[in-house]
Amino acid sequence: MSGRLKTAVLGATGYAGAELTKLLLAHPQVEQPILLRRNGNDRAESSLDDLFPARPDNGYQFHSLEWPTLKRQGVELLFCATPHEVSRSVVPEAAAASLRVIDLSGAWRLRQERNRAIYGFRDQDSVTATELTRRAVYGLPELNRDRIAGAALVANPGCYATTIILALAPLLKADFVDCEHGIICDSKSGVSGAGKEPTDRTHFVSVADNLSAYSVFNHRHCGEIVEQLGLEASDLVFTPHLLPIPRGILSTIYVRLSREATNAELEACYRGFYGGKRWVRVFPTPRLPQIRFALFTNYCDLGFCLADDARRLVIVSCIDNLLKGAAGQAIQNMNLMYGWKEEEGLR
Amino acid sequence: MSGRLKTAVLGATGYAGAELTKLLLAHPQVEQPILLRRNGNDRAESSLDDLFPARPDNGYQFHSLEWPTLKRQGVELLFCATPHEVSRSVVPEAAAASLRVIDLSGAWRLRQERNRAIYGFRDQDSVTATELTRRAVYGLPELNRDRIAGAALVANPGCYATTIILALAPLLKADFVDCEHGIICDSKSGVSGAGKEPTDRTHFVSVADNLSAYSVFNHRHCGEIVEQLGLEASDLVFTPHLLPIPRGILSTIYVRLSREATNAELEACYRGFYGGKRWVRVFPTPRLPQIRFALFTNYCDLGFCLADDARRLVIVSCIDNLLKGAAGQAIQNMNLMYGWKEEEGLR
Amino acid sequence: MSGRLKTAVLGATGYAGAELTKLLLAHPQVEQPILLRRNGNDRAESSLDDLFPARPDNGYQFHSLEWPTLKRQGVELLFCATPHEVSRSVVPEAAAASLRVIDLSGAWRLRQERNRAIYGFRDQDSVTATELTRRAVYGLPELNRDRIAGAALVANPGCYATTIILALAPLLKADFVDCEHGIICDSKSGVSGAGKEPTDRTHFVSVADNLSAYSVFNHRHCGEIVEQLGLEASDLVFTPHLLPIPRGILSTIYVRLSREATNAELEACYRGFYGGKRWVRVFPTPRLPQIRFALFTNYCDLGFCLADDARRLVIVSCIDNLLKGAAGQAIQNMNLMYGWKEEEGLR
Amino acid sequence: MSGRLKTAVLGATGYAGAELTKLLLAHPQVEQPILLRRNGNDRAESSLDDLFPARPDNGYQFHSLEWPTLKRQGVELLFCATPHEVSRSVVPEAAAASLRVIDLSGAWRLRQERNRAIYGFRDQDSVTATELTRRAVYGLPELNRDRIAGAALVANPGCYATTIILALAPLLKADFVDCEHGIICDSKSGVSGAGKEPTDRTHFVSVADNLSAYSVFNHRHCGEIVEQLGLEASDLVFTPHLLPIPRGILSTIYVRLSREATNAELEACYRGFYGGKRWVRVFPTPRLPQIRFALFTNYCDLGFCLADDARRLVIVSCIDNLLKGAAGQAIQNMNLMYGWKEEEGLR
Repeated sequence: MSGRLKTAVLGATGYAGAELTKLLLAHPQVEQPILLRRNGNDRAESSLDDLFPARPDNGYQFHSLEWPTLKRQGVELLFCATPHEVSRSVVPEAAAASLRVIDLSGAWRLRQERNRAIYGFRDQDSVTATELTRRAVYGLPELNRDRIAGAALVANPGCYATTIILALAPLLKADFVDCEHGIICDSKSGVSGAGKEPTDRTHFVSVADNLSAYSVFNHRHCGEIVEQLGLEASDLVFTPHLLPIPRGILSTIYVRLSREATNAELEACYRGFYGGKRWVRVFPTPRLPQIRFALFTNYCDLGFCLADDARRLVIVSCIDNLLKGAAGQAIQNMNLMYGWKEEEGLR
Repeated sequence: MSGRLKTAVLGATGYAGAELTKLLLAHPQVEQPILLRRNGNDRAESSLDDLFPARPDNGYQFHSLEWPTLKRQGVELLFCATPHEVSRSVVPEAAAASLRVIDLSGAWRLRQERNRAIYGFRDQDSVTATELTRRAVYGLPELNRDRIAGAALVANPGCYATTIILALAPLLKADFVDCEHGIICDSKSGVSGAGKEPTDRTHFVSVADNLSAYSVFNHRHCGEIVEQLGLEASDLVFTPHLLPIPRGILSTIYVRLSREATNAELEACYRGFYGGKRWVRVFPTPRLPQIRFALFTNYCDLGFCLADDARRLVIVSCIDNLLKGAAGQAIQNMNLMYGWKEEEGLR
Repeated sequence: MSGRLKTAVLGATGYAGAELTKLLLAHPQVEQPILLRRNGNDRAESSLDDLFPARPDNGYQFHSLEWPTLKRQGVELLFCATPHEVSRSVVPEAAAASLRVIDLSGAWRLRQERNRAIYGFRDQDSVTATELTRRAVYGLPELNRDRIAGAALVANPGCYATTIILALAPLLKADFVDCEHGIICDSKSGVSGAGKEPTDRTHFVSVADNLSAYSVFNHRHCGEIVEQLGLEASDLVFTPHLLPIPRGILSTIYVRLSREATNAELEACYRGFYGGKRWVRVFPTPRLPQIRFALFTNYCDLGFCLADDARRLVIVSCIDNLLKGAAGQAIQNMNLMYGWKEEEGLR
Repeated sequence: MSGRLKTAVLGATGYAGAELTKLLLAHPQVEQPILLRRNGNDRAESSLDDLFPARPDNGYQFHSLEWPTLKRQGVELLFCATPHEVSRSVVPEAAAASLRVIDLSGAWRLRQERNRAIYGFRDQDSVTATELTRRAVYGLPELNRDRIAGAALVANPGCYATTIILALAPLLKADFVDCEHGIICDSKSGVSGAGKEPTDRTHFVSVADNLSAYSVFNHRHCGEIVEQLGLEASDLVFTPHLLPIPRGILSTIYVRLSREATNAELEACYRGFYGGKRWVRVFPTPRLPQIRFALFTNYCDLGFCLADDARRLVIVSCIDNLLKGAAGQAIQNMNLMYGWKEEEGLR
């Protein structure tokens, strides 16, 4: 046990944080994580019931966040599964305490000021924040494996963004996409993506037997999609929808090819890009991913249909939003940061 | 239009109140109801979006509750679809203003102090409250038709209670039940029964793919069940469960017969009791009700299975909790109070 | 009763036929419909349990389809809620027997041979079929009100097609759409749209907690969409998805405007087109339809979002697939054919 | 790899068989299982899509069942996840071929002829069947650990039976239950328990938004419950219900205690019985299990509520029907048969 990595989780009370805690508890290279809570988070204790429903009274507990204590305990890596505004204030302190951090919020994902604006950070990009933003690595292992390995701060991608970036990156790299024509991303997500806070829109009765679109043209994930793919903001139309399911995302993506292609060429393009990448599955045409195939796995599943005109392409991309879209991807990033196999703790 | 009844609804922002408002809007004998809100209920305005999702800006609106205004407008009947504590303070005022009231909460259903205790009313049964309790009629039309017709205050039954009382009343009247043996009521309800307030337990992710029991041995509806059926509290075991569906209740009820019976005798007992009653359907053996048959109707559906020993009986009772369990039953009560056909506005 | 219209329903065993039967039973201008079954349809009897779950044994029943009997009974209007291949053989017989017909299948919706090909009709467009196709009126009342009124054969539209045609028709008429750029229709439907036949893909476990795309680029409804809207086949990309809900459709539609527009102009365009049309609701920006608002109504709900560049437009269109998408629309067509108010029997 | 156990699975096309196959593929002591199919099972191939959705064409495949081939391949253990009638014909052949068998059906669970009658086996308890029945061990590890270890044929328990037997065994052993008073088991199961065959009752539209009771007083699992617990058939009332969820069972069980008890005594009774048993969790009062806590685990979760009179007891018991109720329990049994840790391959 002595050689195992010591980690701490801030925000194990949310869906992503709880999923992360479960993964860490089962990870062969990691000690039982220390669960941290911010002062005044009353939800913390009750959330242990979900994590450990039959626990005896003397079981797991939350600890207050104190940097000297963490250091004394030998913690090397901090996971922040916190709202972005909390991450903006906690991560600089963690960096000052020389902890490596994997942050699951949108706080550190964006390089361009215009994309950050939608988050309205109260620190208004202080010097520290600017410096941290510069050093942060966007934690999508299939694109940034090497930089993640050496990162002090990994900005774990958004769930929607993961489905869309992984679906488009191979085609864009091979110059297959007519970007100016516009790329339509019609995404559908389960409710855990909307967070654990009870609201009118996450009430069971609001969601069940329903489907609704929201944040049309102004969802926060647009910024990271265009930054990571090198697109213009106007190239992208992104419409998220709220599905009556607990977890899972399916994105249906529409592109116009810049030149005619065949199914075989496109499949080769995807297989070439993702060869050797453990957590992306390319479906053979004409098979398409479904949410249920990806659920409870760390896979991003990709498939596509090409029209008879060899130019109009529909791509389907699926993940479990709490795994490849959040906690699983965080574990994958940790594995890269510490030189372990990419699937460690994720099978 | 001039001959139509003028009504007002306090609490149209909740699920039962909204359902009631829709029924009143379509009721041929009733004018468009006046929607009232209490001061400080911010949820009111937004709830209009659900009631009238495509409404123009100058459409429906909520009005503050002012008794002189209501009288001046000619309102005769007030529906309170409010939390029980609110009903305890509003209904005495309505009575003083000579309005008839149908109250959908638990505020006025209980005769016995020990059963009221669980509600913890702050008025501690003041003189007015005691007097109103005495005059209130329990609004289950199949049992109390005549008294409802003349009532100034109708206490609309609880949803679970409706399924259980209607399932047992015929058997008890015919002395078929060995009460001392104990009556087990295992009830399962859709989430709208838990109210519109967003909470951890009504969050979609808490409910979906799940089933949970709650309030075992101490649910509020126990009191009205034993009072209306003339049982001892210890005769009844009532376990409600939260189903992953928006609406509907199924109660599975287990009794030991006091004497041997045949399917034909039991079916005759039910058909005799409910003959001419518009909103109870007795299923012919061996058919059993299902929630979906009762959904979006005002029916209480009843069916049963008798064991080979002719003594152990399982009864299945289903309703739509927002209709026969709340708003539909309120309309049925209104129809009786004003001498209209029992199905008016409910087909 | 004597003045009421006499109708018959073939196919009341399916979801659309059952919904239609319920609507006819409650329609003030129509007698209780005669339920017909084809020989050998064993599912018919058991389906009565769903329609009339508590029926006594001597209640409703199915009758064999015999033209002389129907005529003798005075039936004027036949509803076919049957598979398209059945409609192709039954409707010519009904026409020969001088019955008016509303057919809910795809059998008679398509004018162009290349669009009919996907159905693979066994009659290979016989003389009779060709003649009937010529006389059939596409039963979308908002487009074809006058022709429906006088029609002998109404081809009730497809459910997906209804959402898409009604969303696009106003914009196309006002020449707002850059059709050559391509129109993307990303549609999501509840499972009743897939029919009542139990299959692997309609099994609860296949659908729940899932979302899947299907029939990409080759769904049957493409033909009627392009025909009714006057588009080229290559203008349209249509991707249907199977939602884990029983009923309801939401289509998210992406168009490039041919000229810059404002929200006000677009809303005026929609309101102008649908002014006086009872069963289309235009949502005021920025409100968007959701499936639950349209459920259990005959409305088609429309709303939209315009991008900052005033050119990229997202339209959201919702219906209840069993009402405005099938049985409700059939009733609306019947109302037009017999000169009744368009909302008769549909409120 | 050479030291690993060689196994075969007959019936990997069903829900339990597919779950079992996934568990075997990840089990550290077992080689990749050989997937067998019976002749004429066309569903087999397509079911591989669910098991291995992105598999290349040359991936997994089904093999015909041939005993000499299995022996030559060194297969020692056969899992039958087949209908009971198939198990009745296959297991005698497997026994003749000296294979150990874990059978997931009801074919070999019952000792008493009157309980087997409901299955209507066509072999009418031939000499071989009688002998195999005598030797079969009921595979509930918490009751029969030692006998399972040495068994040639393990009859894996029914899913409902597992929840009920584990909830009652400790109380019965401690003589806490007034059996003659009657034991009420009100069970609710997800749809995967009804099997993968598409039927009217497993159609999504039949199940969603619904709850229904079925097989009241005559469900097949009654036999194994009374046999394993030593009850009289008339002691038990068992009502299963079909829940609108894919997987999971919650049983609410009502007993009258034979003597007064306290919460502490009852909790001690459970904890004593299940001390050291890896896959049962006893919840501390007043916490109750919910289906979601047990989902995707091999746990049986137990909790209870005691009435004020210290005699009426409600027990709640939850499992994942595909794990502790089928495939997980089969793995647990295999672990015992081969001397491995009880949690191997199940964490």
